[in-house]
Amino acid sequence: MTRTEPAGTPLGDEFHLYDTTLRDGAQREGISYSVGDKLAVARLLDELGVGFIEGGWPGALPKDTEFFARAAKGELELRHAALVAFGSTRKAGGTAEKDAQVRALLDSQAPVVTLVAKSDRRHIERALRVDVAEACAMVSDTVSFLVREGRRVFLDAEHFFDGYAADPETALRVLDAAAEGGADVVVLCDTNGGQLPLGLAETVREVKARTGYRLGIHCQDDTSCAVANSIAAVQAGASHVQCTANGYGERAGNADLFAVTGNLVAKLGMEVLPNGAAELTRVSHALAEIANIAPDTHQAYVGASAFAHKAGLHASAIKVDPLLYNHIDPAFVGNDMRVLVTEMAGRASLELKGRELGVDLAGRPEVVTSVVDKVKRLEAAGWSFEAADASLELLLRKEAGEDNGEPPFTLESYRVVLDHRDDGEVLSEATVKVVVKGERVIETAEGNGPVHALDAALRKALRPFLSWLDSVELADYKVRILSGHPGTDATTRVLVESRDGEREWTTVGVHPNIVEASWLALCDALVHKDLRG
Amino acid sequence: MTRTEPAGTPLGDEFHLYDTTLRDGAQREGISYSVGDKLAVARLLDELGVGFIEGGWPGALPKDTEFFARAAKGELELRHAALVAFGSTRKAGGTAEKDAQVRALLDSQAPVVTLVAKSDRRHIERALRVDVAEACAMVSDTVSFLVREGRRVFLDAEHFFDGYAADPETALRVLDAAAEGGADVVVLCDTNGGQLPLGLAETVREVKARTGYRLGIHCQDDTSCAVANSIAAVQAGASHVQCTANGYGERAGNADLFAVTGNLVAKLGMEVLPNGAAELTRVSHALAEIANIAPDTHQAYVGASAFAHKAGLHASAIKVDPLLYNHIDPAFVGNDMRVLVTEMAGRASLELKGRELGVDLAGRPEVVTSVVDKVKRLEAAGWSFEAADASLELLLRKEAGEDNGEPPFTLESYRVVLDHRDDGEVLSEATVKVVVKGERVIETAEGNGPVHALDAALRKALRPFLSWLDSVELADYKVRILSGHPGTDATTRVLVESRDGEREWTTVGVHPNIVEASWLALCDALVHKDLRG
Repeated sequence: MTRTEPAGTPLGDEFHLYDTTLRDGAQREGISYSVGDKLAVARLLDELGVGFIEGGWPGALPKDTEFFARAAKGELELRHAALVAFGSTRKAGGTAEKDAQVRALLDSQAPVVTLVAKSDRRHIERALRVDVAEACAMVSDTVSFLVREGRRVFLDAEHFFDGYAADPETALRVLDAAAEGGADVVVLCDTNGGQLPLGLAETVREVKARTGYRLGIHCQDDTSCAVANSIAAVQAGASHVQCTANGYGERAGNADLFAVTGNLVAKLGMEVLPNGAAELTRVSHALAEIANIAPDTHQAYVGASAFAHKAGLHASAIKVDPLLYNHIDPAFVGNDMRVLVTEMAGRASLELKGRELGVDLAGRPEVVTSVVDKVKRLEAAGWSFEAADASLELLLRKEAGEDNGEPPFTLESYRVVLDHRDDGEVLSEATVKVVVKGERVIETAEGNGPVHALDAALRKALRPFLSWLDSVELADYKVRILSGHPGTDATTRVLVESRDGEREWTTVGVHPNIVEASWLALCDALVHKDLRG
Repeated sequence: MTRTEPAGTPLGDEFHLYDTTLRDGAQREGISYSVGDKLAVARLLDELGVGFIEGGWPGALPKDTEFFARAAKGELELRHAALVAFGSTRKAGGTAEKDAQVRALLDSQAPVVTLVAKSDRRHIERALRVDVAEACAMVSDTVSFLVREGRRVFLDAEHFFDGYAADPETALRVLDAAAEGGADVVVLCDTNGGQLPLGLAETVREVKARTGYRLGIHCQDDTSCAVANSIAAVQAGASHVQCTANGYGERAGNADLFAVTGNLVAKLGMEVLPNGAAELTRVSHALAEIANIAPDTHQAYVGASAFAHKAGLHASAIKVDPLLYNHIDPAFVGNDMRVLVTEMAGRASLELKGRELGVDLAGRPEVVTSVVDKVKRLEAAGWSFEAADASLELLLRKEAGEDNGEPPFTLESYRVVLDHRDDGEVLSEATVKVVVKGERVIETAEGNGPVHALDAALRKALRPFLSWLDSVELADYKVRILSGHPGTDATTRVLVESRDGEREWTTVGVHPNIVEASWLALCDALVHKDLRG
């Protein structure tokens, strides 16, 4: 890992974009990265161009030890980022040289080490149970040992803001100990996440003025201000920002790397990524996949809805100039503007939507009129196309007179039987009769519920005829009871999200019978796949 | 709607907590409130204690017109909040008196009207296509007309921050026009959501100093700073904050009412809710249910994980003192520290809940323990009692060993058959075999869908035995597919709201089979009616 410039500084050392998805992000409830996952996450972060990737806590967590070992063996080639090992200072009363955990940090071969230390007197005395002098010695001993061993060292000053408010002298003494030991950056951590931007910025400014140290910032999102606090800290003098992908982290999470980066680049005009911000959206979604967490559709900058417009009021102005209603050009962060077709929307949004789906409606006012009428009629009956682009595309193509080809199958009939037996068992069974490529097929299957059974029977019937069938899986299934007619005879809207490994598409079905509504959405999903391949 | 103090001021008029879930929140992709939903949302917001509830845009959207009509007819009794109608100023070149949309605002009978007006010169000239003088006349004419008609008027200055940055004089002229017309509050809107807290606070401070007007703030979340921006604006002099429940709104959403309120109360020490913040978590989750959006587990203050701890490092310190690792006491916002426990399963809230439902659990710690265990186990399997008080009451009574009497009926078996015939007709038929008052009854009925047919058959079987049966009707029926097992074999949660002319009650059922889940909720509804009369 030799390099001419200091590790982790693709754009020079003036500003550090530091990611801790693999360590602090992994504290999020529900995340459990394998070592392979961790390597994949690190590669994506490096492609994006962050300066530092905190890989974990070697010596404390076996998976993290293995991650660093495999990285050192050449399984992780980083182009931009420096790998960082996270750990704590030596134990009270011992020496850094002989501390097993500190040695594990060296053994990890990471060129950078971030040490965590308590900087709140109450934590030092009540949780660590040492006095402030020993706490400071633990910091300076460990930092100076690692620096002598050729590592670059940063210090995470845990609970800094709470500690500084309660006892500023102790908090500053911990920073001093790190600086004296040779730490490059002291990172002020809002560990409990209780800060607000104006107060936090004031503290950062004050600490900068009193110490002159290079300051970093690490924020948790417990007041829903982690991104804002991180940005405010940079404006107040911090030049090192710790974030996690999509804000993953303990409790309410951490500062979201993508929102922080978007703000630094688009709002403060800082060049913090070597290749610009256009990969933010792709990397965010890929990292959500690896974490096995559905992407937050409403996430700032990178969410699927981040530039989605619904109000008819806005849609007509968007035709005049999209930037009148977007805070930035979505393409800047690799995202897209979408227009949602709803009862609130009109002709303008439908034309925009057609353009987006590749159906040109410009100069065909009569088609737009008939589609608007049809959409309005369907929406009055409970249909909703704003989340069902694939069904809308089928409708648009049909109204525009485009040849959609033969449908891959036609239904003759189906029957679903549900039995709650006297032994308490509940059984679902479905039989479908369909015509596929000229042949009449009858199949029966069971399922956990009526729709599952019907889906299983249909797939059984189609499988011999449609080679792509098994590549299509259901990603999500949503049911909404429309309460125009209250009670169990209400209209039901079903949204089905499908995927085939390459793309995802959503279809909609509406009917008073939930099973029939589901059937309509399931059929649209397969027809759309057949059409688009 | 007469009251002695000004409308919407349960704590006096000094600070306005203003909710726009029903108007701006409804712009979120995927939300489609029925009129019944809107009334339920307004009731919950009023229980929480917000000062103002913006109900919609009467005259522009038929559902909103109906909402205000039903509210005016007595379907919405507000204890704390004032109802607000949202709308735009008169059309260019016309008069306010004759403007149909302005008249609809009066017809709504809402005591408060919020008018939206463009305050960015580029929007005035390019989207509205009038000059600044006419734009200002549209504002002052409409405001003064509504004030003369006895309404309290607020002005939403759309795109204020972008407009003020580009051309401050025009932006201020629009505020002047509103103030001259008699508007009480001018609300500075970050419509495109591109602001950051430090800059926004500076602008608010400057505008306050230049105008002396009472300022409001309305933030969108496109930089992930909506909450922070709202709080910064209050610190800089705004005394009216517009939010939406859970941050619902267009694109990345709006400022989250619950995080903003949590910050105002817990961080700035402001008394903005008449009954304190302990209902924040419950109301947040109930509003997510109505919106049919899964609650964000990592939401600040109210998320199920907001006070959940995973780090081993933290675990021991938490034992020493939980507040060392929590920014506030979770109970303050009705939340709970443990991971898998929802706020409803906490011992204290369960005792409170018992008292509310008439089941005394004080002094019976062993019953509380067994109920907490049972609720935790059920919630881990997908049950949710947050919105299903009647099911929770049945469970509490059973665990407390109270005599619930004989159940009014027991099920032997049922069968449901769905036929999509070859002529396209879809038929649903259900047969139930039940024992009622010692007699075995078999009945069959048809319905629009499987659950409707089952409900009809059950009622047919029970009608001769239960005199009250026909007084019970289904007010609402909600289905939520629980993610975790994606696709059509996922677990299904059904909520059934029943009413009998005197009261309303909600029951829940969970099962992989949607029909069985519905059956469980339907049965609980009738058992509860039988018990409570």
